[in-house]
Amino acid sequence: MNYRTVFHTLGNILVVEGFILILPLIIAGFCREHAAVSGFGAAAAIAFSAGFILTRIDRKGEILLMRDSMVIVGLSWVVISIVGAVPYYVSGEIPIFIEAFFETMSGFTTTGITVFNDVESVSRAILFWRSFTVWLGGMGVLVFMLAVLPAKGGSSLNLMKAESPSSDTDKIVPKTQMSAIILYTIYVILTVLNFIFLKLGGMPTFDAVNITFGTAGTGGFNIHDDSIAYYSSDYITIVTTVFMFLFGVNYSLFFLMVTGKARQAFRNPELKAYAVITVFASVTIAFNTMSRYSGFGRALINSSFTVTATSSSTGFIIDDFDMWPSYSKILLLALMFVGACSGSTACGIKISRVIILGKLVVADVKRLLSPRSVNIIKYNGRVLNQEALVSVYSFIIMYAATFVVSVLLVSVNDLDMITTISAVSAAINNVGCGLGQVGPSGSFSIFSRFSMVVLSIDMLAGRLEIFPILLMFYPRTWYRY
Amino acid sequence: MNYRTVFHTLGNILVVEGFILILPLIIAGFCREHAAVSGFGAAAAIAFSAGFILTRIDRKGEILLMRDSMVIVGLSWVVISIVGAVPYYVSGEIPIFIEAFFETMSGFTTTGITVFNDVESVSRAILFWRSFTVWLGGMGVLVFMLAVLPAKGGSSLNLMKAESPSSDTDKIVPKTQMSAIILYTIYVILTVLNFIFLKLGGMPTFDAVNITFGTAGTGGFNIHDDSIAYYSSDYITIVTTVFMFLFGVNYSLFFLMVTGKARQAFRNPELKAYAVITVFASVTIAFNTMSRYSGFGRALINSSFTVTATSSSTGFIIDDFDMWPSYSKILLLALMFVGACSGSTACGIKISRVIILGKLVVADVKRLLSPRSVNIIKYNGRVLNQEALVSVYSFIIMYAATFVVSVLLVSVNDLDMITTISAVSAAINNVGCGLGQVGPSGSFSIFSRFSMVVLSIDMLAGRLEIFPILLMFYPRTWYRY
Repeated sequence: MNYRTVFHTLGNILVVEGFILILPLIIAGFCREHAAVSGFGAAAAIAFSAGFILTRIDRKGEILLMRDSMVIVGLSWVVISIVGAVPYYVSGEIPIFIEAFFETMSGFTTTGITVFNDVESVSRAILFWRSFTVWLGGMGVLVFMLAVLPAKGGSSLNLMKAESPSSDTDKIVPKTQMSAIILYTIYVILTVLNFIFLKLGGMPTFDAVNITFGTAGTGGFNIHDDSIAYYSSDYITIVTTVFMFLFGVNYSLFFLMVTGKARQAFRNPELKAYAVITVFASVTIAFNTMSRYSGFGRALINSSFTVTATSSSTGFIIDDFDMWPSYSKILLLALMFVGACSGSTACGIKISRVIILGKLVVADVKRLLSPRSVNIIKYNGRVLNQEALVSVYSFIIMYAATFVVSVLLVSVNDLDMITTISAVSAAINNVGCGLGQVGPSGSFSIFSRFSMVVLSIDMLAGRLEIFPILLMFYPRTWYRY
Repeated sequence: MNYRTVFHTLGNILVVEGFILILPLIIAGFCREHAAVSGFGAAAAIAFSAGFILTRIDRKGEILLMRDSMVIVGLSWVVISIVGAVPYYVSGEIPIFIEAFFETMSGFTTTGITVFNDVESVSRAILFWRSFTVWLGGMGVLVFMLAVLPAKGGSSLNLMKAESPSSDTDKIVPKTQMSAIILYTIYVILTVLNFIFLKLGGMPTFDAVNITFGTAGTGGFNIHDDSIAYYSSDYITIVTTVFMFLFGVNYSLFFLMVTGKARQAFRNPELKAYAVITVFASVTIAFNTMSRYSGFGRALINSSFTVTATSSSTGFIIDDFDMWPSYSKILLLALMFVGACSGSTACGIKISRVIILGKLVVADVKRLLSPRSVNIIKYNGRVLNQEALVSVYSFIIMYAATFVVSVLLVSVNDLDMITTISAVSAAINNVGCGLGQVGPSGSFSIFSRFSMVVLSIDMLAGRLEIFPILLMFYPRTWYRY
């Protein structure tokens, strides 16, 4: 570990967070929410002072090993969440610091799990900050995918490489910096479009900003106790469904579309599977829940919203799906794990990985039927090499192991099994809403502090695709060099 | 598919089943249970007549492709279960044929799931047949592992090969036939020992025979509504715990022990992990449930019994663990999937595979820390080749996919989520007892006929390690050649 460079980089990140905190500070001032003003003031002061001290540490050369970048990413999320928790705590909105940290981690990881029981009584500046952390978290993930993942070089995180083994030819534009600008442009344009469509539906500006941030970052903090159902507007429900779906699509496909390669984009197997899964789940859940609504149409609007909110890991709510029949609930639980497309802000295992795993099984069956045939696994027209395949298996195993261990740790809290299992699923898949006591009508404030720490680690592990977090538990990572 | 040879072989198996059915027929006669006499008579008549017709079909040469052997194994289990269901149906003990089939499949796959609500009212000959199917199923699995698995040659089922890539040097004795005799001898000796120990505890002979068959086959049909708790004897509880543990050990290790290579046997990583898992789970569950019992000792007796019954997939019951706290229940659910040792009659994923998957993750982390190092994965002192590793991954993915799809299919029954999920877990892992409505105080008779078919397929898929069953759903398997 190159500690000096790690500290220096964390210092830079804190200074940036300090500047970002000025925006909610101004909003709190405008709204005359004095508690919030002091909260954001304190947070900004901490960010600037800690950032100033850390940036004084000389970087020891520019050479960073891959594990250092991984650790920097993991630690950044932890550090910005600690500082980002200060406004909740100082303003008194969340009087227990670990819960404030949990809420902030939930925002920056674009999860959307909340400890608030009565969100409508929370001050506006705090609600804005909460939604803003989701949108910023989405940006952070885009950098992470672009800058850190491809450089990892043949290890398990490298989904981009798994998708395109001849990776040089596949980068959307040659330079990372240029790619970043394009991705951010797409993110911002989609965000603005989402906002405009919500405003056209007559939504108040404050609400539209919050809902848009939640949708874009696929985090989905609610600003009303009834979430999207509050607006009782099919227009707003459908617009949100469409944008939740769009924010779950691989951003590079949007780039292909606007650069006139739409046909290539629509041939993408992950996009096709995403569409098929969404339609299949929406229709079957609509049939399954039809008797609860005034006809199939109404059931379909609710089911497609809920399916998209789950797949894209947004976690907005249109109805209490914890009351739905078992088939619907179990399918939603499965969709949490499958997630949406790689290269988006959505979370979960990602559809491309599921496709690759399916192809592996088919190849294995074929090998038995014709032992002498050579079975290569192709994805999106390219042959996957052994290294790319091992990345995928290794990811799945780490994911499953993290899930099982977390469920066992959280189960010590002795809540019922469905609550325990779905809470960990909601956290590791960054969905934000589970079943039972953490379902649409519940809150995560029921968990012990120990469970909150476990769930915070799960949120971060899910968001950063496990590996960087696993690495932090491996002693050799911390050896000085 | 070489249909002639497949039919001919199935005919032979039916004739053998006909002879086997004479034993319960005699018992029914002795007990003067006339309904059961007619049931076993009818079943034997069907087995002999169908067997006679099928064996008339000329085998078309001796050449069987691997897929043919797989299909023969899968179909044998189905065919013997159909014929084996006749006694239940004709005797009137189970008036619905699909439920009788389900009960028989549960026996032959050594699962131990039952549709009987009041097992104490069932006739003795039928109870004997039920337990006997479990013991026969255990024998069948031993043949399967010996004769079919190694021949599969580098595909996913081949755990024996995964354990020992240089497989020629590892066979316990050179010839398959000799190995079979040794395995059967071990199985029979352990069965007899188990019987003697139970008799020493004062158990009635009929009960001791049934409990021994259930323990040996790791199937565990209960012959009293309270299962093992009926005897209220710590001696019987502990003896059963020990034998359930022993029947979950790789049989080749017993061979090593009796041939003076005990040290080599105790060095086996799977055995060590099996012991560690059993102790860890027993002790933590004892702490977790302590307040329900008169002290830690009592809690430990119950927890170690339940843990061993779950790991070894026997499914005997000492207490209603559905009333235990969440940690205990979730850990038991996880143990169902982990299972016990390969090369035993126990089911589940098997500990050796879990060890190999763990090593894969560690190798992946190490590769990141030292990219230039060559990371080979060793198991039991031998390097695993790529083919062996792919077998393990592929198996896990097929297992997970079968589980998820089955849960979704069974969820249409609209029982609660815990019942649905644990019922499929109990079926695919051949454990025999779930949670909720299929917990220790429940019965599987609550399921619809469709769900019973799905669960029957799961039992068989779990028992034959998925692949042969998956193959049967692949159209090309059925092409005539």
